[in-house]
Amino acid sequence: TFVRGMQTVTLIPGDGIGPEISSAVMKIFEAAKAPIQWEERNVTAIKGPGGRWMIPPDAKESMDRNKIGLKGPLKTPIAAGHPSMNLLLRKTFDLYANVRPCVSIEGYKTPYTDVNLVTIRENTEGEYSGIEHVIVDGVVQSIKLITEQASQRIAEYAFEYARNNQRASVTAVHKANIMRMSDGLFLRKCREAAEKHRDVKFTEMYLDTVCLNMVQDPTQFDVLVMPNLYGDILSDLCAGLIGGLGVTPSGNIGANGVAIFESVHGTAPDIAGKDMANPTALLLSAVMMLRHMGLHNYAKNIEKACFDTIRDKKVLTKDLGGESKCSDFTEAICQRVRDMD
Amino acid sequence: TFVRGMQTVTLIPGDGIGPEISSAVMKIFEAAKAPIQWEERNVTAIKGPGGRWMIPPDAKESMDRNKIGLKGPLKTPIAAGHPSMNLLLRKTFDLYANVRPCVSIEGYKTPYTDVNLVTIRENTEGEYSGIEHVIVDGVVQSIKLITEQASQRIAEYAFEYARNNQRASVTAVHKANIMRMSDGLFLRKCREAAEKHRDVKFTEMYLDTVCLNMVQDPTQFDVLVMPNLYGDILSDLCAGLIGGLGVTPSGNIGANGVAIFESVHGTAPDIAGKDMANPTALLLSAVMMLRHMGLHNYAKNIEKACFDTIRDKKVLTKDLGGESKCSDFTEAICQRVRDMD
Ligand SMILES: CC(C)[C@H](C(=O)O)[C@@H](O)C(=O)O
Ligand SMILES: CC(C)[C@H](C(=O)O)[C@@H](O)C(=O)O
Repeated sequence: TFVRGMQTVTLIPGDGIGPEISSAVMKIFEAAKAPIQWEERNVTAIKGPGGRWMIPPDAKESMDRNKIGLKGPLKTPIAAGHPSMNLLLRKTFDLYANVRPCVSIEGYKTPYTDVNLVTIRENTEGEYSGIEHVIVDGVVQSIKLITEQASQRIAEYAFEYARNNQRASVTAVHKANIMRMSDGLFLRKCREAAEKHRDVKFTEMYLDTVCLNMVQDPTQFDVLVMPNLYGDILSDLCAGLIGGLGVTPSGNIGANGVAIFESVHGTAPDIAGKDMANPTALLLSAVMMLRHMGLHNYAKNIEKACFDTIRDKKVLTKDLGGESKCSDFTEAICQRVRDMD
Repeated sequence: TFVRGMQTVTLIPGDGIGPEISSAVMKIFEAAKAPIQWEERNVTAIKGPGGRWMIPPDAKESMDRNKIGLKGPLKTPIAAGHPSMNLLLRKTFDLYANVRPCVSIEGYKTPYTDVNLVTIRENTEGEYSGIEHVIVDGVVQSIKLITEQASQRIAEYAFEYARNNQRASVTAVHKANIMRMSDGLFLRKCREAAEKHRDVKFTEMYLDTVCLNMVQDPTQFDVLVMPNLYGDILSDLCAGLIGGLGVTPSGNIGANGVAIFESVHGTAPDIAGKDMANPTALLLSAVMMLRHMGLHNYAKNIEKACFDTIRDKKVLTKDLGGESKCSDFTEAICQRVRDMD
């Protein structure tokens, strides 16, 4: 849904290099005249009533109102019982789908070319249930929880994503040969969704086979959908194929249009504040955000300016193989965006 | 322990291309005058007393007596309740460690060079416990079981393997940030083993990070040890890096010297009986077996003959990029082995 006026997005700059790369993204959006205004919030967890960790009320309220967030890397404080900030955000806003498009970047050399796939990870249950017990001394169990509801929701999402993004096929990734009931349920829901979306091709593959085939020829894959842990693994593996977390965008999708887009790299405290960080992952996440908001033209222009700058190789940050500062790389992208006008 | 006379090994030729590649291995062993005699057995499961699937008594007896087995690919019959033959064998002989050396093969091009690592997978528990329940309609749980005993055993094995094979480091692969108790226990046992084996470097890494780094630069890894499912995934991923299951050896190690070495590719029914199969994975598994038996010279010669034949590129099976038959490839290796005399 294209909106003519400005839309407000909750901006969570994050820690370490977070503020630098966030301001890089803001500059580029400004140069592109993207109709976005930012509402900055800090989400570092606080102890709420009853001692439960929660994100601050003003950040929660901002997200609830705006529905869309953009987030830099967050440091999880090492206080006893402190939850991972990533997990807390996913939980607070019921962000059930983690979506990561992995597309080869021309000019940024990796062992692979022409990678163009999307991993869609169930983000709320599975191996991440947090339920564990000691049975007897020396025997521990962790519970993987798979529900019909969550499986159906993510399967539906995968097919809808494929259709909305002109993608031809969805592959369900599983180990139902081993976890017959849990992965079996997940797989059944994928099959049911496939029945409803016959315009999209459907295949099923074992996780181990996907990993093997992925490193041999990633170009055979399109959209992949899978339970939580498998998605954790495969999404990072696929990021590696195209150059790592520094260039891979990510989106966490919830119900009713709620979504947080984020760079999934770390806070890089060693280079924080030194104007050396690479804003690409956050910028491409912001581009995903624009598409999610229906602002396709702005998305296309900013993405093109970023890719052109990388392909051109003249102004690159260190991790991309260049010698330029974050601010110079940012300005180079701004310049290209302005030239498109 | 080097033995002067002949040692008997239980040979499980397997299904599909299994018999062809088994006889290729036997020919090469004969050419190398390896002091091995084969005792062929069929392990296809039968229904035992009480209706439980089991491997036939004569196969069990042979393995119990010889302790060492070599196994081709097995087809798992699709009878109701029929267990995976692989799982059944692991269980029957308590083969607790799956070991897969992944070493780049000169002359066989993949996106990577100089891969030289070993995955060591806990083979008996974890996500493969087989315990699953329906909690309520539409809610299923699978139980991941981690025990102190099995974790300690595999951790110890990894360090001993590193020492015996002149490897400098062991990396424990885990998700103890998510499965704090189960992976936490596994990790603790690895740390304890590391304390006892200070000559070997020890590191710990998250599974997702390993996957990402693995596809970016596999040369940074040496020995990796991990719970069952992670090993299932990583061992296949690593096989992909060096050319796939057709060239990757595998060993399943139990207590008291018991071990079954196997090729982990499929039965390839489409080319079975056509003299087209590639015996490399089974041959390299047999080479692992020779090393396990202390027959290092025979191992070295056969391995060299195999690698030289591949590097030479003149006589290769189709999957290796050539046009030769299985029998010609086999004979080329035999010739080289004979020339070493
Ligand atoms: C930080 C950690 C809890 C998280 C996970 O395991 O999900 C991370 O690896 C991710 O993929 O976002
Ligand atoms: C066949 C299957 C049960 C098995 C597994 O998942 O362990 C296979 O993938 C393997 O790695 O040996």
